[in-house]
Amino acid sequence: MKLKISRRHLKNRMSDLPHIVIIGGGFGGVAAARAFKRENVRVTLIDKNNYHLFQPLLYQVATGGLNASDIAQPIRRIFRKQDNVQVIMGNVVEVQAEEKNVLLEDGTHLDFDFLVIAAGMKNAYFGNDLWEKNAPGLKSIRDSLEIRRKVYAAYEEAERRAQNGETVDSWLTFCVVGGGATGVELAGALREIGLETLKRDFRSISSHKIRVILIEGGDRLVAGFHPSLSEKVAKRLRKIGVEVFLNTRVSDIDNEGLTTSDQRIDARTVVWAAGVAAADLAATASAPTDRRGRLVVNSDLSVIGHSEVFAVGDIAQMMTAAGDEVPGMAQGAIQSAKHAAKNILATLADGPRTDFVYKDKGSMAAIGRNAAVVETSSVKMFGFFAWLFWWLLHIYFIVGYRNRAFTFISWIWNYLTFGRGARLITEVPSGHKIPTTEDYLTQVVSNSRSK
Amino acid sequence: MKLKISRRHLKNRMSDLPHIVIIGGGFGGVAAARAFKRENVRVTLIDKNNYHLFQPLLYQVATGGLNASDIAQPIRRIFRKQDNVQVIMGNVVEVQAEEKNVLLEDGTHLDFDFLVIAAGMKNAYFGNDLWEKNAPGLKSIRDSLEIRRKVYAAYEEAERRAQNGETVDSWLTFCVVGGGATGVELAGALREIGLETLKRDFRSISSHKIRVILIEGGDRLVAGFHPSLSEKVAKRLRKIGVEVFLNTRVSDIDNEGLTTSDQRIDARTVVWAAGVAAADLAATASAPTDRRGRLVVNSDLSVIGHSEVFAVGDIAQMMTAAGDEVPGMAQGAIQSAKHAAKNILATLADGPRTDFVYKDKGSMAAIGRNAAVVETSSVKMFGFFAWLFWWLLHIYFIVGYRNRAFTFISWIWNYLTFGRGARLITEVPSGHKIPTTEDYLTQVVSNSRSK
Repeated sequence: MKLKISRRHLKNRMSDLPHIVIIGGGFGGVAAARAFKRENVRVTLIDKNNYHLFQPLLYQVATGGLNASDIAQPIRRIFRKQDNVQVIMGNVVEVQAEEKNVLLEDGTHLDFDFLVIAAGMKNAYFGNDLWEKNAPGLKSIRDSLEIRRKVYAAYEEAERRAQNGETVDSWLTFCVVGGGATGVELAGALREIGLETLKRDFRSISSHKIRVILIEGGDRLVAGFHPSLSEKVAKRLRKIGVEVFLNTRVSDIDNEGLTTSDQRIDARTVVWAAGVAAADLAATASAPTDRRGRLVVNSDLSVIGHSEVFAVGDIAQMMTAAGDEVPGMAQGAIQSAKHAAKNILATLADGPRTDFVYKDKGSMAAIGRNAAVVETSSVKMFGFFAWLFWWLLHIYFIVGYRNRAFTFISWIWNYLTFGRGARLITEVPSGHKIPTTEDYLTQVVSNSRSK
Repeated sequence: MKLKISRRHLKNRMSDLPHIVIIGGGFGGVAAARAFKRENVRVTLIDKNNYHLFQPLLYQVATGGLNASDIAQPIRRIFRKQDNVQVIMGNVVEVQAEEKNVLLEDGTHLDFDFLVIAAGMKNAYFGNDLWEKNAPGLKSIRDSLEIRRKVYAAYEEAERRAQNGETVDSWLTFCVVGGGATGVELAGALREIGLETLKRDFRSISSHKIRVILIEGGDRLVAGFHPSLSEKVAKRLRKIGVEVFLNTRVSDIDNEGLTTSDQRIDARTVVWAAGVAAADLAATASAPTDRRGRLVVNSDLSVIGHSEVFAVGDIAQMMTAAGDEVPGMAQGAIQSAKHAAKNILATLADGPRTDFVYKDKGSMAAIGRNAAVVETSSVKMFGFFAWLFWWLLHIYFIVGYRNRAFTFISWIWNYLTFGRGARLITEVPSGHKIPTTEDYLTQVVSNSRSK
C-alpha cells in the first residue's frame, strides 16, 4: 500500500485517511511516527514540549558539560520532510479510549482511529512527594537546568560564606540517591566538577572539602549489569573519590540534607535518581496498569480492552521472551514503537497482528572521564575502550547533524580542557510545581505569577 | 609598584593591601579588574550572576541562533589566573559612600578603599512599567530566553489554532519597539525565522502571513549613524519584508498587541528595544544623577562628592571631548573602566589623576543575513563586506576561546543551513518580577513559590 503522491494531492485527501495519534515525542513517539513514512495514513504527534530530547545525555546538561540545545531537537524539524506528520505542542490530559479521542489541556479534543501512547515516565519518590522540591530528579530539560543551578549555586554560596568565616561543608556535599546508570553517571560528573573544573576558580574553598556521595538501596550499583561489572564500577567511583554507600535506604530528605538508615548527611544538593513511574496519563486510559502505573499490554502491544490503543516505551509494561520486564531504555521504546506501527498497518490492511519480541542490544554507562561499562549478550567491557565505545555510540544516536556535531566538538573541548562550558546559573528555583505546556505557551502572565 | 610575589605570600599579606570593590561583571567591571593585574591591590568583583555576558549578541540568543552559554563566560573562569581578584556572586543593594562600604542583599557589608560602580543599565519603559510583562526588553540572559520562548511559542500556538480554523494573524505578528541597533538586529533576525528557518516546519500556517514590524519614534533608524546609512538600513529591512514605521510613538502595550498614534496592531509578541535607564543601584550612591538615573561623574570619572567612588560604563553619564554623551556601548565601558583603574593606581602612588578622554572607535549593526552597517570616523560601510567585518569583530571580541570557537561554528552552521539550533521553549513566563541573586542562590524553595 505504498504510494508516492504530491504534497498538494496528499493535503486534499488527508481527511479521508486513517488518523493515527501519537502521544509523546521521545524515542518511542518519534520512532512510531517515522515508521509511517510514505504510508497512506495521517499522523498527529503531540508532545508537551517543542523538542525531542536525547535523555541518555541529560546528566551532562545537569552538570554543565553540554547545552540543552545540543541534546534537543525541535520535533517539527525532525518531520519537516515527512508530509503526513502533523506536530502539535500540547498536553494530553486524558485518553478517552471508548470515544476514540484524546482531551488536551486547552480543552480541545482530537479524534483518532489508532492511538500510540508513548508518554514515558516521571520521577517517583516512593510516596514522599515532598522530597521532590529538595531533590530534583532528572527526566526533563527543566530538571537538568534546576540541578545545574543547584550545583553551581552551592559552590558560589560556599565561596561567599567561607569568606565570612562560616563552615561550608554542607554546601560542598553533593548526594546522589540511586545507583543505577543515571546515578553513577551523575556522581562521576559531579566529582569531576569538584576535582577538575573548579579547581582554580575559587579562592576561599578548598577542593579537599568537596564530597560526592552515591547512595544505593540495593547491595550493588548498576544492578542491570553483571555483578562483576558492578564491582568494577564501584571500585572506579571510589578511586576518583566518590563515596559509595550500598544497602543504604534514605528515610528523609529536607532542605539541608538527608537521613539514611545509618546516619544524617548534611548536603545542600541532593539529586534524585532512584525511581521513576509511568506518566500520569497512563491512569486515564481506562485500561489496567501495574504497580508502577505502567499500562499492561497484550503481546501485540495494544492495551487491555482497547485494540486500537497501543502503549510503547517505558509507559508500557512489556515482557521479554524470558518473562522479564523490558528495561526502560531507548532501545525498548524504539523497538516497541516500530512494532506497534507495524501492527497498526497490518490491521489497516486486514492482515494479522504479530507478537512483540524484544531484542536486548545491551546497556552501558559512563563513569567520569575515561571509564565506562558496556554489557551485551556477548560482551562485557570496562574501562577506557568501553568509554570510547560509549562515546561513539552516543554521538551516533543523537538526532540531528547539528546536535551530533556540536556534542562531538563540546566533548573533545571539555575533555582536553577539563572545562564545562555551560556552567551558567540561569534558572530560578521553580518549586514543586511542574509547569504545564499551557504555562510555556502562555503569552499573558497571570497576576499570581507576576507578584 | 609592580611586584611579582608567590600566591601563598600574597594570601598572607592580602588583608593589608588596598581593597578595590568593583560592582558589575560586564564589559566595564571585567576591564577594571583586569587593569589591576599584577598590581599590589586586593580586588573584589561582585556580580548578580555567575557569568560575564557578551551583550551585543544577546539578540541571537533571543532568536535561537546561539546558546546562552556561547556568549556567557563564568566570571571566575576569566580571573582564574589573576590571583588578586576575588569573585562573588551577590547583589549590591546600596552604596554607602560615606562609610566606604557596600551593602549586599544577603545583609552583609563589604568595606572598600576604592569603589568602581559598573552596574550597567536596565530596561526602561518611560514610566509605563506595566508594559514590561507584555514586552520584554533585552538586557539579560533571562530576558533573551523569555523572548525566545514568546517567539517560538507564538508559532506553536498559531499552528495549533490554525488547525482548529481560528484566525491566527495576531500570533504571527511580531513587533519590535525601538529602531536602534538592537531593534534593527532583532527585527532582521525575527524576519529570517519566519522566512527561512520555519518555512517547511509548519503544516497549517503560511509564511506569507508572518509580519515583522519595527516601530521607531524618531524620523530614522539607527540614529547614531550617518543619515545616509539609516536610509540604507531601512531600505534593506523593507527589502527582506520588515515593515518599518518611523515617527510612530507607542501609546499602549497590552497582552494582545499595541497601540500607536496612528493605529492598533494586534501582535502577541512585542519586544522592547526602545529605552534603557541606569541600574537602580545608581540612586543609592548619595551622588547626583541625570534624568536617566545615571551617575554624573567628574572628569576623572569619580562621582560628585566622593573621590574614592568611580562610575564607569553606561551607569555613568560621561562626556566626549566635543561635549556629547559617550554612547552606552562596550568600548565606552572598557575605556572608562581602564581609566578609572589608572586613576585609582595613581592615587595610591600619590600621583595626579588624569581626565578621561573617550576615543570613538565606531559602531555597527547587522541586518539579517549578508548585510550590516559599519561606521567609524573614517569609514562608512554597508552591505556584505560590512557584514563580514561585523562577523569577524564579534567573534574576536567574545571572551573565552570556547565561546569564540562555538559561536564561530554555530554561525557557519546556521548560515549554511538557515537553521537555528537553539529554538527550544524551556522557560516558564516569569512575569513582571525580576529574580534577585538570592532567588538564584536559594536552595530552599519558599512556600509561596511552590504552590
